[in-house]
Amino acid sequence: MNIVCLDLEGVLVPEIWITFSQASGIPELSRTTRDEPDYNKLMSFRLDILNKNNLKLPDIQRVISSMKVLPGALEFSNAVRERSQLIILSDTFEEFAKPLMAKLAWPSLFCNSLKVADDGTITGYKLRQHNGKREAIKAFKAMNMRVFAAGDSFNDLAMIREADSGCLFRAPDQIRKDYSIFSCMDTFEDLLAEIDKFLK
Amino acid sequence: MNIVCLDLEGVLVPEIWITFSQASGIPELSRTTRDEPDYNKLMSFRLDILNKNNLKLPDIQRVISSMKVLPGALEFSNAVRERSQLIILSDTFEEFAKPLMAKLAWPSLFCNSLKVADDGTITGYKLRQHNGKREAIKAFKAMNMRVFAAGDSFNDLAMIREADSGCLFRAPDQIRKDYSIFSCMDTFEDLLAEIDKFLK
Repeated sequence: MNIVCLDLEGVLVPEIWITFSQASGIPELSRTTRDEPDYNKLMSFRLDILNKNNLKLPDIQRVISSMKVLPGALEFSNAVRERSQLIILSDTFEEFAKPLMAKLAWPSLFCNSLKVADDGTITGYKLRQHNGKREAIKAFKAMNMRVFAAGDSFNDLAMIREADSGCLFRAPDQIRKDYSIFSCMDTFEDLLAEIDKFLK
Repeated sequence: MNIVCLDLEGVLVPEIWITFSQASGIPELSRTTRDEPDYNKLMSFRLDILNKNNLKLPDIQRVISSMKVLPGALEFSNAVRERSQLIILSDTFEEFAKPLMAKLAWPSLFCNSLKVADDGTITGYKLRQHNGKREAIKAFKAMNMRVFAAGDSFNDLAMIREADSGCLFRAPDQIRKDYSIFSCMDTFEDLLAEIDKFLK
C-alpha cells in the first residue's frame, strides 16, 4: 500500500506566518523554517513578538480564515487522493490549520497544537513529537506502507530522506543548491508526474 | 493531537462480500469476519468459491461500483473530519474500496491489497501487516496521537482495545454479549456523541 506525505505551507497553502506578517504589518513575523532551521528558536521568537504586540489567537485565526489555498492545490490534492493515500505532515498548529483544511476538502493532517490561555493569548505550543515529520514516515514504513514525501523547507529534508521516494517542491535556491541530491519540482503537474512514477 | 479510527464495512458502507453474495447468487460468499474470526481461513474460502465460479476482479468491482454508502455515513464521516483526523482501518482491499472512498469524499484508508493475474483472476492477497488494525493504532500512539476506535466485528476488537478510547458500532448480538466490556452504539448520532466526549 502506498502513501503520499506532503508538507502544507509553501506546498498547498501560502506560508501562514508570512501572510500574518503582511496582514499585521510586522515584518519580523515573516521568518519561516526556510530562514531558521531551528524550529524552537523560531517559535519562541514569534510568540515573543505576538505578546509584545498584544496579538492573540483570534487575531491570527481571522487572517487565516481569509487565506486561499495556492492556485491548483485543491485539484492537485484531489488527484493525489484518487491515486493513493494522502497525509499532510506539517509543523503548523491544529488551531491554525482548520479553515485551510476545509478549503482542501479535509485531507488528513498530522501536526502540532498550541497552548492558549482563556483570553486567547498563545502561551506556548506542544510539538506532537521531536522530529515529527521523520517519525511519522518511519511509523508508516513500520506499517508496511511505501512512502513518497515532498516539501519545500529545511524541516522537510529528514522526511524526504526517510521516505522510500520523494522530492523538493518550490524550494528556495539555497536548499536546492545545498540538497541537490533531491530533485525539485516547481509545478503541481510535475509533482504529480513524480508521484505517478512512484506509484507505478 | 487526536485521531479517530473507524472500521469500513458494516460501519460506513455495507459488507462488500454480502452485497456481492446477493448480486452473484452465491450464498456461501456472505460469510464475513463477523462469522469467521480467522481472516486467512475466510479469504481462502472466498477465493476458492470465486475461482470455482469463474468470477474475476472486474465482476466484483462492477457490483461495488453500484453500492451506496450506509444512510448518514457521509454526513457522519464529514462531521468527524471537521472535529478530528479520521483514518479508516479496514481489512478490505484497495482494489475494492476505491469507488466507496469516492462516495465518502476520500477519507484516508489503510487496508490490504489483492494479487490479480492479467486476466483479472484474484490469485491471492497481501495483508499490509499481521494484526494491521491493532498495529496501526500502536503506531499512531507512538506518534503521540490520542486514538479513538470503533468497529463492528471480531477483527475490530484488538483495535478498540489498543486505542485510548473506543466502542463497538452496530455489532452482532454475540459480540455485544461476549465483549460487554465495550459499549455499543447503534446510531451515527450516538457514535458522534461518544467521539465528542473523547475529544473534550
